[in-house]
Amino acid sequence: MPSAVLLLSGGLDSTTLLAHALHEGLDVHAMTFRYGQRHASEIEAARRVASHFAVRDHVIVDIDLRTFGGSALTNERMAVPKDRDPAAMHDGIPITYVPARNTIFLSFALAWAEVLEAGDIFIGVNALDYSGYPDCRPDYIAAYERMANLATRSGVEGTNPIHIRTPLIAMTKSEIIKHGLALGVDYAITQSCYDPDSSGAACGRCDACLLRLKGFAEVGTGDPGRYRLR
Amino acid sequence: MPSAVLLLSGGLDSTTLLAHALHEGLDVHAMTFRYGQRHASEIEAARRVASHFAVRDHVIVDIDLRTFGGSALTNERMAVPKDRDPAAMHDGIPITYVPARNTIFLSFALAWAEVLEAGDIFIGVNALDYSGYPDCRPDYIAAYERMANLATRSGVEGTNPIHIRTPLIAMTKSEIIKHGLALGVDYAITQSCYDPDSSGAACGRCDACLLRLKGFAEVGTGDPGRYRLR
Repeated sequence: MPSAVLLLSGGLDSTTLLAHALHEGLDVHAMTFRYGQRHASEIEAARRVASHFAVRDHVIVDIDLRTFGGSALTNERMAVPKDRDPAAMHDGIPITYVPARNTIFLSFALAWAEVLEAGDIFIGVNALDYSGYPDCRPDYIAAYERMANLATRSGVEGTNPIHIRTPLIAMTKSEIIKHGLALGVDYAITQSCYDPDSSGAACGRCDACLLRLKGFAEVGTGDPGRYRLR
Repeated sequence: MPSAVLLLSGGLDSTTLLAHALHEGLDVHAMTFRYGQRHASEIEAARRVASHFAVRDHVIVDIDLRTFGGSALTNERMAVPKDRDPAAMHDGIPITYVPARNTIFLSFALAWAEVLEAGDIFIGVNALDYSGYPDCRPDYIAAYERMANLATRSGVEGTNPIHIRTPLIAMTKSEIIKHGLALGVDYAITQSCYDPDSSGAACGRCDACLLRLKGFAEVGTGDPGRYRLR
């Protein structure tokens, strides 16, 4: 089985991504980051998901992006925006954007892929139902892939090129959910919220919750995720 | 003063780079990595250098690249190659290559630059007197810069583009040393060796030492660095 490295946050998108990669017959090495995020309970969700799917291995990488600040996701004193209109979320970059986060995550994945001689790196970015982050756009992914192939052994030796795989990038949230349900994903074990309470219950009002709830509403099934009462 | 982020290892190249950036009148924010390297005493050299030049600030970022392995620099059980011919060092990629290291380092620098609104990221790569690492080549740097401008706020808003600055990339080691001496660099406080002893004394035989010694020999001054007796 060919190997792949997959960025797993434990949310709806990356869990669907994992089911997709496994369905392709890949030997998946999952990677999750403890980066100082306020919603650190997503790490537990990632562990549940990795365990549920019995991936080959799962590493939790410790980095501290609080060093730089600049985001509500890494600074408890900045409020996570609530109740935004999903249709307007990509007008401007919200305060939940973490500077260079996907670039940092992909760079660790690239190091692991090079050592494993894996040809595929999976990342669950989405350019339709998303929060307006610059590092979720197709142009960015294409530029990253080009850079990655110059950065590594494959760029010198002409062997084993790296592909940045983004099968969800052009799907709506409801299409992602339908895709996952068809692959047998149980979304009860996932966590998407940027601002969960200490028990991991979702707020239901941040961008991530609103996009998720809209997706499940469009699919017409209930969201099995756990929300706290308003 | 415009701000810049500078990757500082405490070696000959990055110290010259720092003197160069300060000579340009930039407000330098220096960044050093504790990444599980066997030559961790370079972190002390970086602290000495940052302190000597009184940079605006200096962060030590903790990441553990031993998780992935694949390099003699992060695995004490792999021997650092000794006594290689400097003229043949870029035929093939040596075992001291750390997969995706510069990509990871630049990605943290990118995050900090975005928060600081710094337009320049300095990295002391060199494509002449070097060990054959893929992530030291001009094509790689150009691809990284292009990706970085798509990854960040500047790519969406069209403001404050990021420049990856590599003023040493086309210099020989002796040219780098002459440039640094002209800027007043004291190379006694730097450390280049991949395999220093516990006191920080250099081995004199690894690629980094041999390139450095060749450079000082060509300049005609002695190397003020501290080497252990053979």
